[in-house]
Amino acid sequence: MKRKLSPTKSIENLVKLLRAKPSPPASLADNELLRIIYDRRSVRSFTRQPIADDVFNAILEAGRLAPSTVNLQSWTFAIFDDNLWQQTFEHSIPFHANRAIIVIGDYHRYRTVLEDFPDCPLTEYTIAVINASLAAMNMNIAAEALGVSSVMLSETGRSGLLDAKYLREKMALPDGTVPLMTIVFGYASGHFHPMPPKLPMENITIPGQYQPTETTVMKSWLDQMIAGYNVSHLGSSFQKQLEIYQSKINRAETDLRELVFYKERP
Amino acid sequence: MKRKLSPTKSIENLVKLLRAKPSPPASLADNELLRIIYDRRSVRSFTRQPIADDVFNAILEAGRLAPSTVNLQSWTFAIFDDNLWQQTFEHSIPFHANRAIIVIGDYHRYRTVLEDFPDCPLTEYTIAVINASLAAMNMNIAAEALGVSSVMLSETGRSGLLDAKYLREKMALPDGTVPLMTIVFGYASGHFHPMPPKLPMENITIPGQYQPTETTVMKSWLDQMIAGYNVSHLGSSFQKQLEIYQSKINRAETDLRELVFYKERP
Repeated sequence: MKRKLSPTKSIENLVKLLRAKPSPPASLADNELLRIIYDRRSVRSFTRQPIADDVFNAILEAGRLAPSTVNLQSWTFAIFDDNLWQQTFEHSIPFHANRAIIVIGDYHRYRTVLEDFPDCPLTEYTIAVINASLAAMNMNIAAEALGVSSVMLSETGRSGLLDAKYLREKMALPDGTVPLMTIVFGYASGHFHPMPPKLPMENITIPGQYQPTETTVMKSWLDQMIAGYNVSHLGSSFQKQLEIYQSKINRAETDLRELVFYKERP
Repeated sequence: MKRKLSPTKSIENLVKLLRAKPSPPASLADNELLRIIYDRRSVRSFTRQPIADDVFNAILEAGRLAPSTVNLQSWTFAIFDDNLWQQTFEHSIPFHANRAIIVIGDYHRYRTVLEDFPDCPLTEYTIAVINASLAAMNMNIAAEALGVSSVMLSETGRSGLLDAKYLREKMALPDGTVPLMTIVFGYASGHFHPMPPKLPMENITIPGQYQPTETTVMKSWLDQMIAGYNVSHLGSSFQKQLEIYQSKINRAETDLRELVFYKERP
């Protein structure tokens, strides 16, 4: 990933980004919930306004009620205000958000009553990752419905999958649990939360049979990513973000294999 | 899992189930979107009413706009009406639903322009599973917002993770893609769609440090699962469903390891 953009190309791509605002088809334009779903943005700057308990609990309730494979509810939500986050991790909640939920895939809990579930670590892990992610998205949308913004984090401040082992130690998580992401919540500060470049619908849908995406489409996406990242992630860049991932990912891979295949440990 | 319930115990547990209706706190009761999220149910019986194209496309748009790690959009949606489903799989869409989306974790596509992404199959796979599941939930809620019901399937009619290899062959999926689930969509037939037993909030949330759930709580959940499954899954039972999983899961585990660790194939 050594692609550099000239200033002209950068501006061209920023214009593309700003024009790409999605909107429901005219026939469905008055659907308020649909608009909330489409207008959802990952927000990384928050006011100091606290989130009331009933609002935060209503968000958690959306997680509790999410669908899951065979209703296994293979998730645990570690919940934090800034005090508890500071006590646990010795710094503030990332982006000075007001509350945080660490979403954990949990296939430890149901094992206590379904002892004779067959041994199938990768499948069971995957099911837990799917279910916990469904719950995460449900909480994210519930937050939006309540005027609360959020962002799901995988690495900022050692907050997700790339730091699974660290998080497990800090929270004393048992085998059969994997922390997947942190969602941080607050009231959005500022009004400009641009949408990152989304691939065109025809490139992410297939009619029955797989069709590879043309390289020109992917290159255009990459150019928009590079141009747009600076705008939405002040002080960072897409290149830098990828480099962080690349530097952490080998360690993360080793840790994750240890966590997932813990029964196969020598 | 050899737990049997007496008729009295069954009725007791059904009553518990029916009483467990969630509702937003009084202070938030007029939030319509929150109500849609809480009232969402997995629906397995549909009318013959077709879903209009603009409605189906609006559902897909919610998937396209879902958040994803580093905006990688590591998903592909295989879209079907009943004709295409029949052509591809030689039977009707499960539950005679009107449309279907097979949600595929896809870390093949972005590799075409991010060639020097490090080799980390389990991490990359997990990120794709998280992202694709976020998109799945977003589509599910968008459907609800449009009055369309759905259910996410992992095994009915060879529709998900447990039949990943079969689905890959049928759809000619390349390495770096894993089919995770099928969502089938339609207009709900009937009005009784009970909620499966959800674990109490205090058992799925932890304040910073992990706390094991008491066995009595898990046993009560299991009793409600057994009592409730017959009501919501006519012609099946929780026991039977678990047995299907158990019979398929060893094969699934082998297949899945082959798909995820494909570069390590001898």
